[in-house]
Amino acid sequence: MRGPVTSASYSITVRLSADGDPASVGRIATAVGSAGGAVTALDVVESRSDGLTVDVTCSAADAAHSEEVVAALDALPDVHVRKVSDRTFLLHLGGKIEVGSKVPLRTRDDLSMAYTPGVARVCLALADHPEDVRRLTIKGNTVAVVTDGSAVLGLGDIGPGAAMPVMEGKAALFKRFGDIDAWPICLDTQDVDEIVRTVELIAPGFGGINLEDIAAPRCFEIEARLRAKLDIPVFHDDQHGTAIVALAALRNALRVVDKELADVRIVVAGGGAAGTAIVSLLLEAGARHVLVWDREGVLSPDDDRLSPAKLELARRTNPACVRGELTDALVGADVFIGVSAGNVLPVEALEHMAERSIVFPMANPTPEVDPIRARAHCAVVASGRSDLPNQINNVLAFPGVFRGLLDARATEIRPGMLLAAADALAAVVRDDQLNANYIIPSVFDTAATEAVAKAVEESARHTPGATVDLDEDSLPV
Amino acid sequence: MRGPVTSASYSITVRLSADGDPASVGRIATAVGSAGGAVTALDVVESRSDGLTVDVTCSAADAAHSEEVVAALDALPDVHVRKVSDRTFLLHLGGKIEVGSKVPLRTRDDLSMAYTPGVARVCLALADHPEDVRRLTIKGNTVAVVTDGSAVLGLGDIGPGAAMPVMEGKAALFKRFGDIDAWPICLDTQDVDEIVRTVELIAPGFGGINLEDIAAPRCFEIEARLRAKLDIPVFHDDQHGTAIVALAALRNALRVVDKELADVRIVVAGGGAAGTAIVSLLLEAGARHVLVWDREGVLSPDDDRLSPAKLELARRTNPACVRGELTDALVGADVFIGVSAGNVLPVEALEHMAERSIVFPMANPTPEVDPIRARAHCAVVASGRSDLPNQINNVLAFPGVFRGLLDARATEIRPGMLLAAADALAAVVRDDQLNANYIIPSVFDTAATEAVAKAVEESARHTPGATVDLDEDSLPV
Repeated sequence: MRGPVTSASYSITVRLSADGDPASVGRIATAVGSAGGAVTALDVVESRSDGLTVDVTCSAADAAHSEEVVAALDALPDVHVRKVSDRTFLLHLGGKIEVGSKVPLRTRDDLSMAYTPGVARVCLALADHPEDVRRLTIKGNTVAVVTDGSAVLGLGDIGPGAAMPVMEGKAALFKRFGDIDAWPICLDTQDVDEIVRTVELIAPGFGGINLEDIAAPRCFEIEARLRAKLDIPVFHDDQHGTAIVALAALRNALRVVDKELADVRIVVAGGGAAGTAIVSLLLEAGARHVLVWDREGVLSPDDDRLSPAKLELARRTNPACVRGELTDALVGADVFIGVSAGNVLPVEALEHMAERSIVFPMANPTPEVDPIRARAHCAVVASGRSDLPNQINNVLAFPGVFRGLLDARATEIRPGMLLAAADALAAVVRDDQLNANYIIPSVFDTAATEAVAKAVEESARHTPGATVDLDEDSLPV
Repeated sequence: MRGPVTSASYSITVRLSADGDPASVGRIATAVGSAGGAVTALDVVESRSDGLTVDVTCSAADAAHSEEVVAALDALPDVHVRKVSDRTFLLHLGGKIEVGSKVPLRTRDDLSMAYTPGVARVCLALADHPEDVRRLTIKGNTVAVVTDGSAVLGLGDIGPGAAMPVMEGKAALFKRFGDIDAWPICLDTQDVDEIVRTVELIAPGFGGINLEDIAAPRCFEIEARLRAKLDIPVFHDDQHGTAIVALAALRNALRVVDKELADVRIVVAGGGAAGTAIVSLLLEAGARHVLVWDREGVLSPDDDRLSPAKLELARRTNPACVRGELTDALVGADVFIGVSAGNVLPVEALEHMAERSIVFPMANPTPEVDPIRARAHCAVVASGRSDLPNQINNVLAFPGVFRGLLDARATEIRPGMLLAAADALAAVVRDDQLNANYIIPSVFDTAATEAVAKAVEESARHTPGATVDLDEDSLPV
């Protein structure tokens, strides 16, 4: 019998008392397996003649399943469950990031250089030459990960405190993949003016702003206003990170099916933050036939129910004022990109798409259509799922994008840099590697971040006015 | 001949070309010494028959002196100075702190626990139990080091960017001495309302706020308003850190001269941030005879030239409306504590103080009176100088104060906690160690931070309503 798909994110450690019978260890492992759990570790913590203490670690499919596994263990004769620890919660105890000192502070001489009195000379130099803050402070390598907690993952508006684990995780990913020092800034307001002003006021210490999990349409105005005010790049990962990886995947999928971006008909489901950015980048890249669907139907400029943001999106994509449902829009379409909601697309609708169709159902945690079933109808399928081929994961983009921006000492980010990032990411997959099940590198492929960083840095350096020029010989270093 | 006092904070590395004569290395070292510099390292980087490349590292007394040293080297026959590097600037390249990940991110399983999808469960748990943010995120160990750049060291209003090296240094000290993760927040405003609101909005991710180098009287209002609004402790180090260490030093100085705090006459020079906090803590500790002097003279409640903050200080200290200059106030006084400006006190004035007087001239970088000359007139002298006994250094207080506050999960800081910190710091110096030249521990004495942390934690736990009570068994960990 094939059990449910277990995940490390539902991994528990159960501490048990068992009787002294050596066979009880086998019975424990068997019980976990029979309940569909996957044992990943089993430690006998204490062994005495009258009994054993055993820690068994196992993965389950979800929270209810892990309770079933625990119940199965507790039902064993002569076995008693003493404590259940959740490994994901254990990992989060005390938080996931920390601050380290890059300078020694062992002696008075160390203190006198890193702090008073020596630091005063550096401060005075910066007061005279503010541009050197990017060289003599952490500003040259730091990013603020800013959220208002209003659209966290698929969880919605859970507030700034509950958003912290995501922002810390993001900071850890920035370090791991981009060697960037990112710090979470979780704001206790959802007022646009306050968010903009707060980010503006804290900006002196950061080399970039990564907006994260801020609900649409508020996120558009915040980003636009911050870009106009700040002299450091502002990037909303839910928009542009997603757009870069989706475009990279689409470039390679088109290579697989031998179609041109300018020719294909594309339907994007979801006119929120991600959908809007994807559409913008597709148009920037040369796509000419894009329709956007959301709960109001296909977005059309003559639909007076639409919000200003969606109306703008409709104007840019649908001058012919096509109307209809998602299934209508997909008839004859070559590409489906979903960033909307789970199960909005019946798998049968895929049959009416053009030959050799490309389908990216990326809604989290449940895709628009089951990617496994979609494979029967389409030439290339990609999704957000890590247990299937072709995972569209923002971690392929944002560390490299900011690495490149920081290395170029960029003051802003332009569409050309996003395009360069997408094209560089696509090019990481060589012709001899490319196939329908490998259109995008693995998240652990370090070539991805390096390629994106290099492309963004070069694009920034070649964009007039987008970087700070520093006199490399002006400092006494 | 005794040369000038050199400091590591004016340390330079000079790269020289010299001729191939082996004796030239000796001539280089001699030249540095003759110019009053102290050689700390001399490396022959390259040696060829036609010449040497030598890096000589040496300390100077100040910037002008290091230029003299360089000139002396360049004046040597057959020696050519190629590059002068300033070690303090070198140390600051790229900044002094970094972010580290506390969790492994090597495998998909790691990612699925530290980031999506596993992180979602932790977020949902926090949305239901916001108090657990202190346990499951970095909030439990983080401090924001907040400045507006308006009163940085003795440099004055140099702005938020130029203040960064100090705030980074502070963060590095927090880590080194308190194992606390502190992050610099340098604000691009000096408006009280904006500073208060910004700190309030970023507070969800921090377990404490350390205000730093904010000018008086603005700092008083900012601190008071933040304390009223936030559920985390707010501490202005320039005030309370200084007050704690000064009181600890005074406690021990009084032990040396065998006088009681309640009986002694104390004159505080400087009615700004530090002076106000010192006076408050002295009164809290039981001092009954304190006068404050500032540039208006002895602060008196009937002086209508005084600012509201100074008037309040005058009311609390000088009901008799004593007037006069600093030298008048010192006649017969037992204690002088200076946090004002350099050289405001003629050393002769010390002769008119009471027998066995205590003098702490702490103005930076130049004390109110030369501490070395003061020793001839007083029983105990302490100052901010690291090259003399009895250095009053805030690093003895702030890491321990916040360590204790965070360990207690404190929601606020009260005067009793500051007093407990001062008393614990004083008690680190045992009776058998105590003497006029040892009234305060060295900054590298780890017992100081530990003692302060323990005292603050206990005081917080015994202050009703000052800490968050968490159910230790409620988490699946």
